[in-house]
Amino acid sequence: MEICKERQLTDYNHLNLVSVAYQDRNGTDKEWIYASRGNKTRPDAVVVVPFHQTQKKLVLIREFRVPLAGVQYGFPAGLVDTGETVCAAGKRELFEETGLTVTRVLKESPPVFSSSGLTDESISLLYVNCDGTPCLNHNEASEEIEVVMLSRETATGLLAQPNMMFDVKSWIVLERFASTGSVL
Amino acid sequence: MEICKERQLTDYNHLNLVSVAYQDRNGTDKEWIYASRGNKTRPDAVVVVPFHQTQKKLVLIREFRVPLAGVQYGFPAGLVDTGETVCAAGKRELFEETGLTVTRVLKESPPVFSSSGLTDESISLLYVNCDGTPCLNHNEASEEIEVVMLSRETATGLLAQPNMMFDVKSWIVLERFASTGSVL
Repeated sequence: MEICKERQLTDYNHLNLVSVAYQDRNGTDKEWIYASRGNKTRPDAVVVVPFHQTQKKLVLIREFRVPLAGVQYGFPAGLVDTGETVCAAGKRELFEETGLTVTRVLKESPPVFSSSGLTDESISLLYVNCDGTPCLNHNEASEEIEVVMLSRETATGLLAQPNMMFDVKSWIVLERFASTGSVL
Repeated sequence: MEICKERQLTDYNHLNLVSVAYQDRNGTDKEWIYASRGNKTRPDAVVVVPFHQTQKKLVLIREFRVPLAGVQYGFPAGLVDTGETVCAAGKRELFEETGLTVTRVLKESPPVFSSSGLTDESISLLYVNCDGTPCLNHNEASEEIEVVMLSRETATGLLAQPNMMFDVKSWIVLERFASTGSVL
């Protein structure tokens, strides 16, 4: 597999299509189109997996997602600013989106890829313990967020409800939490 | 949050940008751009989590991904054809990409979302037991795939290696397998 040439097909602010000319393993010329935020450094974003240490609950958010035209369950997440560490970005996003404070960072994943056939987007997962009372004063106007705190029992119940929309990462972690009582 | 109008910005075969005009919770007019395969039904794709029942190993693939310009570890996956069930698509993709045969379907997730800020792409996870000997005769020319069979010990070793590229779903499942010895 050999990549010959890459060119940006669109010129929007936050997301663009990129065309890659490449040769497959038979030497045939091919084109692959993918979506990119155009970041030079990885990861693009941090996804926080927060466990509330005094309440012993997994923290998720319910958030209106414009591309889905509906409300999705997922983890607090956001872009990593230039020069910011994954850890600092995760603490900032958790506080902005939930009002909760990180008390301990348990694990940071390497940059991993969201869906590498469709996009070069990479994220790092930041598993943390947190504390405090949920508070949404720090939300931006574009964010419509509700904080959800789940015990193992309520996690099991939520997974069993039909027609819920979940982010894939939150679904896999929630399934583990419902099965085993832990997320790590 | 109210969605006013959606229009397709590009006209490529497999992936396009879509613009959504919406009003945020302050009533301010906003635009959100996301990438879409344009599928009318969910999920777009199936991602197979295969456990080899006689070897007691988790099956991953190493695959060259054009958008990453490099080799990534991930699960066998592919688009669900029109009229095909998730289960049938998963069995087909596992066989095409690894030569292995599904012996039992353990769990099928609902359609869950890959990265809902960036795309409406949805996938279903299909956890299966499988059997057979890896064989790549059924690969398409655009696929450059190596089958990797991991014990709990080799999974732990792989996660500890620097500079590996992982799909996020495979990283989370691999981490659970390394920690607990099971994936479900």
